[in-house]
Amino acid sequence: MSRPDPLGRLVEQLQRLPGIGAKSAQRLAFHILKTPREQVDRLTEAISEVKDRVTYCSVCNNITDADPCTFCRSENRDRQIICVVEEPQNVSAIEKTREFKGLYHVLMGALSPLQGIGPDDLKIKGLLGRVGHGVEEVILATNPNVEGEATAIYLARLLKPLGVKVTRIAMGVPVGSDLDYADEVTMHRSMEGRREV
Amino acid sequence: MSRPDPLGRLVEQLQRLPGIGAKSAQRLAFHILKTPREQVDRLTEAISEVKDRVTYCSVCNNITDADPCTFCRSENRDRQIICVVEEPQNVSAIEKTREFKGLYHVLMGALSPLQGIGPDDLKIKGLLGRVGHGVEEVILATNPNVEGEATAIYLARLLKPLGVKVTRIAMGVPVGSDLDYADEVTMHRSMEGRREV
Repeated sequence: MSRPDPLGRLVEQLQRLPGIGAKSAQRLAFHILKTPREQVDRLTEAISEVKDRVTYCSVCNNITDADPCTFCRSENRDRQIICVVEEPQNVSAIEKTREFKGLYHVLMGALSPLQGIGPDDLKIKGLLGRVGHGVEEVILATNPNVEGEATAIYLARLLKPLGVKVTRIAMGVPVGSDLDYADEVTMHRSMEGRREV
Repeated sequence: MSRPDPLGRLVEQLQRLPGIGAKSAQRLAFHILKTPREQVDRLTEAISEVKDRVTYCSVCNNITDADPCTFCRSENRDRQIICVVEEPQNVSAIEKTREFKGLYHVLMGALSPLQGIGPDDLKIKGLLGRVGHGVEEVILATNPNVEGEATAIYLARLLKPLGVKVTRIAMGVPVGSDLDYADEVTMHRSMEGRREV
């Protein structure tokens, strides 16, 4: 036995986390071993607190500690426009722009036949139910990849007959990058989506 | 507020871990949020168990759940040879070779004037106390970098007068690599350390 069992068990548990391989798990476990008890307790308490207190909003499926969430309850948000995203963390990405003042709808995933994720696995019914109550525009902000595109196309087909404006976020070369590094598909989308200046 | 506070606190705690930046911490926090409660409990219990049960061996400073550790207690290990390493995780790296049958001594770091780590901060006294009780060779297996080299040279000076054979692990080109990718210093060490075949 090269190391005591509790450490082996911790390494095993850490390896289950996304992006943590065998080497990282070992480095983290040894770090935890070295860290003062109080600081480690703050970590385990934070983990437990998230599991105890954070739930999903019954309206938009965003994460929240009160239901409905702050966005759905707020009187300062524009209720005529809903931004559809795949995951709760995408909401933070959009909020960081400080530009969007509408509401959100989190699908909790994207269509992916390969992973066996179909329309019934996503929170689509709730979205359709929300459209019609004064909603004028639905922005499809699913990821700019195969699954996100398929999901956006699927949703557009369902939403358009409901008489709502459906838009898709722009794809193109990222700001601050160099055209030399843009892949063909992105470059193509960037040319296609050009706008008059 | 773009996300509920417990999640923010968890992200903050996760960011304190080595190699975990803001993005990784957020991804981990959302993963924990999605993971079933029982599995998350297994992680927090594994963390607590490591803090509760794992201590350091009073002889060699390796991590252990019983004092002295399995190596120091074992009757199958060669007590004439001590391998000196910087950190407890280095012991596993050497054990994996299944070649070394001697004892270990963990320094708990390496000399680093830049980080203010001097000889008194390392477990050197314990090592000197162990040499002399039938020990015939001390292998210096500190890291092959500036700090590890300095520590090895410092230890060699202290150990040689005690009448013990002092050796340093070989440095050279890694097995399975390509000479094209070897840096100058490694290549130099590899040539210098050449052996007759």
